[in-house]
Amino acid sequence: MAESRITPRAQDFAAWYQDVVLEGNMAEPAEIVKGCMVIKPNGYAVWELLQRQLDDRFKASGHENVYFPLLIPESFLHKEAEHVEGFSPELAVVTIAGGEKLAEPYVLRPTSETIIGHFFARWIQSWRDLPLLLNQWANVVRWELRTRMFLRTTEFLWQEGHTAHASHEESLAETLRILDIYAEVAEQVMAMPVIKGMKTQGEKFAGALRSYSIEAMMQNGLALQAGTSHDLGQNFGKAFDVQFQNREGGRDYVWQTSWGVSTRLIGGLIMSHSDDKGLVLPPRLAPVSAVIVPIFRKEEEKTAVLAASQSLHQELTRHGVRSKVDEREGLTPGAKFFHWERRGIPLVIELGPRDLAAGQAVLKRRDTGTKQPLPLAELAARVPAELERMQQDLFAAAQARLAANTIRAASLAEVEEILAPVTAEKGGGKFVLAHIQDQAACEEALKKFKATIRCIPMQDLADGPGPCIVTGAPVERRSVIARAY
Amino acid sequence: MAESRITPRAQDFAAWYQDVVLEGNMAEPAEIVKGCMVIKPNGYAVWELLQRQLDDRFKASGHENVYFPLLIPESFLHKEAEHVEGFSPELAVVTIAGGEKLAEPYVLRPTSETIIGHFFARWIQSWRDLPLLLNQWANVVRWELRTRMFLRTTEFLWQEGHTAHASHEESLAETLRILDIYAEVAEQVMAMPVIKGMKTQGEKFAGALRSYSIEAMMQNGLALQAGTSHDLGQNFGKAFDVQFQNREGGRDYVWQTSWGVSTRLIGGLIMSHSDDKGLVLPPRLAPVSAVIVPIFRKEEEKTAVLAASQSLHQELTRHGVRSKVDEREGLTPGAKFFHWERRGIPLVIELGPRDLAAGQAVLKRRDTGTKQPLPLAELAARVPAELERMQQDLFAAAQARLAANTIRAASLAEVEEILAPVTAEKGGGKFVLAHIQDQAACEEALKKFKATIRCIPMQDLADGPGPCIVTGAPVERRSVIARAY
Repeated sequence: MAESRITPRAQDFAAWYQDVVLEGNMAEPAEIVKGCMVIKPNGYAVWELLQRQLDDRFKASGHENVYFPLLIPESFLHKEAEHVEGFSPELAVVTIAGGEKLAEPYVLRPTSETIIGHFFARWIQSWRDLPLLLNQWANVVRWELRTRMFLRTTEFLWQEGHTAHASHEESLAETLRILDIYAEVAEQVMAMPVIKGMKTQGEKFAGALRSYSIEAMMQNGLALQAGTSHDLGQNFGKAFDVQFQNREGGRDYVWQTSWGVSTRLIGGLIMSHSDDKGLVLPPRLAPVSAVIVPIFRKEEEKTAVLAASQSLHQELTRHGVRSKVDEREGLTPGAKFFHWERRGIPLVIELGPRDLAAGQAVLKRRDTGTKQPLPLAELAARVPAELERMQQDLFAAAQARLAANTIRAASLAEVEEILAPVTAEKGGGKFVLAHIQDQAACEEALKKFKATIRCIPMQDLADGPGPCIVTGAPVERRSVIARAY
Repeated sequence: MAESRITPRAQDFAAWYQDVVLEGNMAEPAEIVKGCMVIKPNGYAVWELLQRQLDDRFKASGHENVYFPLLIPESFLHKEAEHVEGFSPELAVVTIAGGEKLAEPYVLRPTSETIIGHFFARWIQSWRDLPLLLNQWANVVRWELRTRMFLRTTEFLWQEGHTAHASHEESLAETLRILDIYAEVAEQVMAMPVIKGMKTQGEKFAGALRSYSIEAMMQNGLALQAGTSHDLGQNFGKAFDVQFQNREGGRDYVWQTSWGVSTRLIGGLIMSHSDDKGLVLPPRLAPVSAVIVPIFRKEEEKTAVLAASQSLHQELTRHGVRSKVDEREGLTPGAKFFHWERRGIPLVIELGPRDLAAGQAVLKRRDTGTKQPLPLAELAARVPAELERMQQDLFAAAQARLAANTIRAASLAEVEEILAPVTAEKGGGKFVLAHIQDQAACEEALKKFKATIRCIPMQDLADGPGPCIVTGAPVERRSVIARAY
């Protein structure tokens, strides 16, 4: 497919995003299936790297992977009142199977608390069976009205953790342990700074006591909820009668958690680092970190340059760098640079006859565009540090942007003023820190600015208590208010 | 859950299989969703190891992973006549979504040739776009009447490869390259010998020119089709109008392949090696290869034994062995041995005070039950070779069983006699090698023995040409006839 122009961010942020996704070989819309996308090779490879980072951490903290059915009897959804109310409008329903109308329809899982509740009741009898720490990697379906590749699609891929505990103290600790894992992966792997916090009662997961999230700021200043961890209390335990004998010999309902991150993270990754030239991938999530582009004209140059390229590739591999040589024929070096630039490859290494004669190669960094000639003899050994520096620089840049665009407000009018220039298409968004009560009326007051309370941060980000900007009642700490995806 | 008795194989093979699956923490039925199962931690961990082995080989041979939508517009299925006829009876259909009846229903993918054909038409214009080598890991749904955990479930997990090529020569080479990868993983990783062959026209994939499979023999002598690779010819290329400009400047339809293995492999793994004590896992697919069980009575014994166990565990890890120490309290060593035996762990290492005093530990092999005291100082270094020996022994035992139960027949009457004692429940099955034509009438003649032509082997397994046992016509080589799962 011919590569086409990428819309500049300043002109139309949403169009820019779509262009970066397409030209980066990340995904493309599947219009024939409402709101779905095809995840293409570069996108899926990033997802696999991200999965590995998350999965290793889940396993290291004692979680085991399992797989529950995609189909859930419709009646299960009705067992938890808030849950069914929250998810009913989004359900896809199987009514016919094997050529016959089903007596009871199945819904495609929008999330799996209900079917897992059913099995927890079967598996858990005693405190000895607890904690039960499970996770699954799966697809889910939610019939969304407005979709956007990676950020919100009818079907998406995710992991959903589901755990059961003997006490609220333990389940709450689990909820927050996972929130920490999510924040660590977002910041250290994705180079995407996040604010950890509690969702308001109005924004929590349908059926939870409390939801916690990590919130990231995209380049246009809009917020992206990047992962959620739910303290389910005993709500699902009661709905599915998951009782256990506790250490004291009494009967009690289990305390549960659930938590998930999805392919939405890839949307956040793209909108955190990419630029007007296309995709930018942080080295830890780049399927290929360094591509060697051999440059030659004559046949004898070709032999020498390709040999040197291959030997550099092998040395890079020895240093743990995911590298490749772009040996494709019929493409100019310029076309190859352009190709890898759009795919977000962190480092491109140019190697031509003159470089070879000088015993060097030229390293080009995707994010800064800087070119650095390095002696061939030490290049491979220096690449890991170079990649690490780029990883840190991307994080620092995103942190600086977050800090520069986070502003305190002391009144609703100030909130309105700060958020006024925002349009989803062109950016200019901010995170507003303001004292505001966790109440429906307060959230309602923000609706006219199309903003929401993103979270009540776990740590005080500013100056302690103050009066609510809507009710004037004292509030312990400032919340984060923003427009969001 | 209390552990219960495992039915002996000789008494009821099907009940034995179910018991091994349950007691091995591999899976359990999800009766509330017709024909589905929950894959439990041990089962999912085996699947992850198997996925890694397959995925590494797919990537090394140039394939890239992608993800296509679960939902397929119903009309897509109708574009390839044989395909819709083959899959229609098994479809699950989404007719309602987002609270509304859908104008066009979606089917849950039973396999993805059709939706991928749609995208191939979009992506492929020229021979330069070929070959296109894609794979996806996904769930699929087929409404099966008779289900059995892992072997045949309504929903299952699999990988499906889909490739497009510029010539039939290339697509056929791909079909057979993948068949070789499947056979290699079956034999070298699963320790499960297989026969590579061509399916008959009657048994091929709906829409293929030719299907190829690997066929394995279970302990009861029944055949299991363990993986298939399809030469699709230009059938889907024509159905979805996937045309390209060839090197000569003309237009042609692409030549496609598709191929898959599924969680069914785990059923084959279980029925290849397990015994009346429960699950037996070959070392290369054991989530944990060696479990150390510390034995002690007094407190001072405990300290010393646990310290020695932990240090042995660390040494095993250094030698690349997936090991763990079973430090659970409130369980006797006997209960622990029993626990790990049922879960199929290849090696259990007993370490008690007397062992410690003698500077040794006792290694117990799951398959043979043999116990071997080994000096602690060299134990960790010897475990990898011990595991490798067990891997080879399991393969050799399965190979010997296959050879001993493969019998030539020269007439239909002989086939009947050889297969007569077979019952799916009690075993006694055989592979019959006979000359038989690839014709509907010949396959029909086998139906009264409930047998099928499993495959026409890629290599002559016996004595060259001979007359068909049904028609008398000359046939190039003997086919494999058996009852099958």
